[in-house]
Amino acid sequence: MPSASAGRKTQEKPREVMDAAEEVNKTVVLHSTPFTGNLYPSFEVDRVLVRVSNLTVQKADEVVWVRARVHTSRAKGKQCFLVLRQQQFNVQALVAVGDHASKQMVKFAANINKESIVDVEGVVRKVNQKIGSCTQQDVELHVQKIYVISLAEPRLPLQLDDAIRPEVEGEEEGRATVNQDTRLDNRVIDLRTSTSQAVFRLQSGICHLFRETLTNKGFVEIQTPKIISAASEGGANVFTVSYFKNNAYLAQSPQLYKQMCICADFEKVFCIGPVFRAEDSNTHRHLTEFVGLDIEMAFNYHYHEVMEEIADTLVQIFKGLQERFQTEIQTVNKQFPCEPFKFLEPTLRLEYCEALAMLREAGIEMGDEEDLSTPNEKLLGRLVKEKYDTDFYILDKYPLAVRPFYTMPDPRNSKQSNSYDMFMRGEEILSGAQRIHDPQLLTERALHHGIDLEKIKAYIDSFRFGAPPHAGGGIGLERVTMLFLGLHNIRQTSMFPRDPKRLTP
Amino acid sequence: MPSASAGRKTQEKPREVMDAAEEVNKTVVLHSTPFTGNLYPSFEVDRVLVRVSNLTVQKADEVVWVRARVHTSRAKGKQCFLVLRQQQFNVQALVAVGDHASKQMVKFAANINKESIVDVEGVVRKVNQKIGSCTQQDVELHVQKIYVISLAEPRLPLQLDDAIRPEVEGEEEGRATVNQDTRLDNRVIDLRTSTSQAVFRLQSGICHLFRETLTNKGFVEIQTPKIISAASEGGANVFTVSYFKNNAYLAQSPQLYKQMCICADFEKVFCIGPVFRAEDSNTHRHLTEFVGLDIEMAFNYHYHEVMEEIADTLVQIFKGLQERFQTEIQTVNKQFPCEPFKFLEPTLRLEYCEALAMLREAGIEMGDEEDLSTPNEKLLGRLVKEKYDTDFYILDKYPLAVRPFYTMPDPRNSKQSNSYDMFMRGEEILSGAQRIHDPQLLTERALHHGIDLEKIKAYIDSFRFGAPPHAGGGIGLERVTMLFLGLHNIRQTSMFPRDPKRLTP
Repeated sequence: MPSASAGRKTQEKPREVMDAAEEVNKTVVLHSTPFTGNLYPSFEVDRVLVRVSNLTVQKADEVVWVRARVHTSRAKGKQCFLVLRQQQFNVQALVAVGDHASKQMVKFAANINKESIVDVEGVVRKVNQKIGSCTQQDVELHVQKIYVISLAEPRLPLQLDDAIRPEVEGEEEGRATVNQDTRLDNRVIDLRTSTSQAVFRLQSGICHLFRETLTNKGFVEIQTPKIISAASEGGANVFTVSYFKNNAYLAQSPQLYKQMCICADFEKVFCIGPVFRAEDSNTHRHLTEFVGLDIEMAFNYHYHEVMEEIADTLVQIFKGLQERFQTEIQTVNKQFPCEPFKFLEPTLRLEYCEALAMLREAGIEMGDEEDLSTPNEKLLGRLVKEKYDTDFYILDKYPLAVRPFYTMPDPRNSKQSNSYDMFMRGEEILSGAQRIHDPQLLTERALHHGIDLEKIKAYIDSFRFGAPPHAGGGIGLERVTMLFLGLHNIRQTSMFPRDPKRLTP
Repeated sequence: MPSASAGRKTQEKPREVMDAAEEVNKTVVLHSTPFTGNLYPSFEVDRVLVRVSNLTVQKADEVVWVRARVHTSRAKGKQCFLVLRQQQFNVQALVAVGDHASKQMVKFAANINKESIVDVEGVVRKVNQKIGSCTQQDVELHVQKIYVISLAEPRLPLQLDDAIRPEVEGEEEGRATVNQDTRLDNRVIDLRTSTSQAVFRLQSGICHLFRETLTNKGFVEIQTPKIISAASEGGANVFTVSYFKNNAYLAQSPQLYKQMCICADFEKVFCIGPVFRAEDSNTHRHLTEFVGLDIEMAFNYHYHEVMEEIADTLVQIFKGLQERFQTEIQTVNKQFPCEPFKFLEPTLRLEYCEALAMLREAGIEMGDEEDLSTPNEKLLGRLVKEKYDTDFYILDKYPLAVRPFYTMPDPRNSKQSNSYDMFMRGEEILSGAQRIHDPQLLTERALHHGIDLEKIKAYIDSFRFGAPPHAGGGIGLERVTMLFLGLHNIRQTSMFPRDPKRLTP
């Protein structure tokens, strides 16, 4: 089927292809550059590889080279149909006995293991009927040469088509889906699905938008140490590290260091980095290692200056994602259907006592100084959504009793504190507060909490040489990704999740 | 001296100031918002604070409010001169007995401890003679009110003026400088110096430029786990973590995870994060925890595609720093004089054998397959600078014998490898290579290095399902900062450095 007009390359003999094919069958694969390995003994690099996403009718009748994975292959008499995949894009390719392909070549093509990476030379042909199963629906590639760049093993631990099948379709039609442990055990393959590609491209976008927004607001990025000499909040839930002849710990949060930077006049700082929690929590939303997007900021008169800056940063992230990552959102929605994420501008702020009233009205019994349980958090999210039509809100003025010792009490109400959490779809994604910057008050509050002053001496000492009033907060990256996309397990939004039972891959 | 025309605020009585002063003497400091604490019993927030950097002749005769630190204070009869500092900017302020200040107020101002944070109301006045000791040389502030926001303790562990004094000035004039341990022990104060502010703002800029450049080149940012189940390179120099009932390790590099992302079709990835090395090295350039700027990229035909992309990324960083951070560079140079950083476009690439020839010509005896010692690295840097006038170059094609097992051998010369280091001012800042992506060859090379295959099974298995040829490298953030600025100790470019002997603050 390739036409004679398809250019110089089409004049070459199919013999070259067979040479390559024979070599490939010995599983000699490319590992030398330029192609001086056995595969291409005297290859001169002058090729331009075309992206699969660029294979459109504009390129009709052109001869192109493409590097892609063999997503599927199906032999049918003297023809073999391949689907070639490159990231989230794919195109149909046809190898047919004729001028450019022998019977052996068709057989060779049909036998290339799925997920192998191939270089294909072919003519782009417009098709009469749209190819519904591919992203490139208007063209197919008529293959003239095919080389295997990297051969996959014949048996895959999971099938990509199964991995992107919506749960409900699997259940209703009795078709295979892939369970989470199989996915995570074979993450290199699972991450190739269009859903995974979209999730982690969007996550990269969250980090980008976070930094872009804060850099524009005049924040400085800092790097804080993860190995620390003492457990900052009393020692619970901290991983211990052997540090030469002593013990050290993994930081549960960069908070002390962010605060030191504020005391060192950086005024507005942020950092992105791993946060470690030695909690034996096996839930849909806990990890032992996650990525914290952290903010700390000196303020002039009121901690709401900081709280509003953080909320606005999140709003800028949501807007940026909806503007720049619509394709990724829709790709994920195909497998995991979900309502679009809603938010208000300015962000809805509720006080804790208002939330209590809403919950009590809904029949929940709770004390004034009681913390929100996970089910109540979720219920509150639904009540807020009904009343205000937003998936994102701030809960301000938590009871002092349920917050850490360094939280600034509310000067107007000694049972309240200048602290806040932020929620997405009814789940906490940020915890923050004004911090006590007065060493005397900090000492009093630590004693009240029964904390050994000796252990937090360095922390308290940080505020002895002039400390501006300041507040901040920490955002969980995986939670924001999960809840923005309406996913239901945080392991879907951590590339290589760590929990009490999983440390691999 | 304040004029009667200075606005409404100047009509108020100085009594209010004394109230504040008396309160401050009880060290009751601001810890409530809005100002409902003892300091400002009924304060309504309607003030705009002006930045010190904006105090110029354009604001002459205006009444302004400023929040700043008391850098120095000097009483002189009925007057008190303060230098007020805000980050790297400072301005002279004058409290003088008159309409707006009593004798007590002058005394109060003179007694405010250095480094305290104050709110000052004053009139901006043009001065006849430039104030050489301040960044705001053309104006001074005639103080009408002064409040202490946060009181510093009277004795500072180090003086900021000593901390920014050039070593040579200290030696020649017998004036105090501050040694490194004192600085690091009191980092909250040391980081306030104009030099530290500049170093870490520039470092924030390096991260920003790194990401900006790579994002524009189509790279995706990834997050890789720091707690890993097995030591990837055989177990030397790895920190052990207690992980619930088992042991785990801290990642020495994100390399495996970057490579897995390449095998998962992300094609071009980068990450910024902590890297841990349990090496008992007490040198000017080793840390046990540092920040890695890591890149990994699939290539089409030649690993130089990647090497050149990395070198270009560094060049974009150098250019960006010289364009956007000239003030910071000059600030650091005042204390640590240094030649401007020089680089070529395109980046100079030398092969290892060429470097050997240069060193041998300079009298160094070295075997063909011997690695560069630190002194030889430095000497080579000087020779390259003399010959090519560049502080940045690539050393390509290292002997295979001195590189890790996963390094791709050079197919044309079995004693060489497809690997490279990059150098700034004669010190290594990046190590990189084409990685073996063929599981069979990887197995052979691991066996050759005597590595237990069982321990790297997961690593090798990552390449079994089709792996594109790829290369990458890791850059040390603190080294790039140090060498770009011509500093001599990596502890100057890590906010909270970690080495075998230091884990605090």
